[in-house]
Amino acid sequence: MNTPTTHATMRFRLWFEDKGQTLLGRGRVQLLARIHELGSLNKAAKSLGMSYRSAWGRLKDSEEALGQPLVVDQGGRKGFRLSEFGIAIVEAYAEWTRRVEDCALAAAKELFPWDSITTKSRNTHDAADDDEA
Amino acid sequence: MNTPTTHATMRFRLWFEDKGQTLLGRGRVQLLARIHELGSLNKAAKSLGMSYRSAWGRLKDSEEALGQPLVVDQGGRKGFRLSEFGIAIVEAYAEWTRRVEDCALAAAKELFPWDSITTKSRNTHDAADDDEA
Repeated sequence: MNTPTTHATMRFRLWFEDKGQTLLGRGRVQLLARIHELGSLNKAAKSLGMSYRSAWGRLKDSEEALGQPLVVDQGGRKGFRLSEFGIAIVEAYAEWTRRVEDCALAAAKELFPWDSITTKSRNTHDAADDDEA
Repeated sequence: MNTPTTHATMRFRLWFEDKGQTLLGRGRVQLLARIHELGSLNKAAKSLGMSYRSAWGRLKDSEEALGQPLVVDQGGRKGFRLSEFGIAIVEAYAEWTRRVEDCALAAAKELFPWDSITTKSRNTHDAADDDEA
C-alpha cells in the first residue's frame, strides 16, 4: 500500500428542491449574484455560459416557488437589478453555506483519518463546475 | 405571482477530494455498503449499474488515498468483505452525513422563508441518482 494521502479537501453542495425540481441552489444564487454585479441578466447569463432564455426560465421558476420577485426589470437600458428579497436570498444562501461548512469541517476532522482537511475557497462566485444552476 | 411553494426539500452532497479527484464520497461509500451486504464486489458493482472494472478502480483509488485496505478478498468463492477499516469508514461517513444534515436543516429553517423544510430519507443506500461513485 502506498503512503496515504494525509490531506483531503472537503467539498459539499447544498440546494432545495420541490417535487424533484431545484428551487434554489448554488447555480441559481450565482446567477443572482452576477445580476447584482453586472446589472444585466444577459451579461450575467453569458458570464456563466448560460443562454438568456435558460437563465430567465430558472429565475422565474425560483420566483414562482418563493412567491416573490427576485429581480426587478428597470426597463430598457437600465437593465436588471435584484429586489430586496433577491438580495436577502443571496445573503441567506451565503450564510447557510458558511454555517454548514463550519459544521461539516468540524465533524469531518473528528471522524476521518486525514491529518489535515481543508475546504475550497468560500467564494461562492468562482466556480465553473456548477451543474445545477 | 403565483402562490409560493410553502415546502422545500433540502438536499446536500458531501465528499472529499484530493487534487480534483474524489477520495471518498457518497457513491464510494454506497459501493462499500453494498459489498458488505452482498459479499461480492461483482454483485455490488452490478447492483449500482457499475462495471466490475470501474468499481475495482474506485476502490483501489480510495484505498491508496486512505493508506489502508477497505476490502478483503477472501479468495475464490468466498468473495469480498469489508476490512475493519472499511466498516469504520462507512460508519464515519454515515455519522458525518447525519451531523451535517441536522446542522444544515436547523440553519435552513432559520434562514429561509419556507413554512416547512424537510430532507430526503436518511437512507444513504437508496439513491439511483448518485453521480460521484
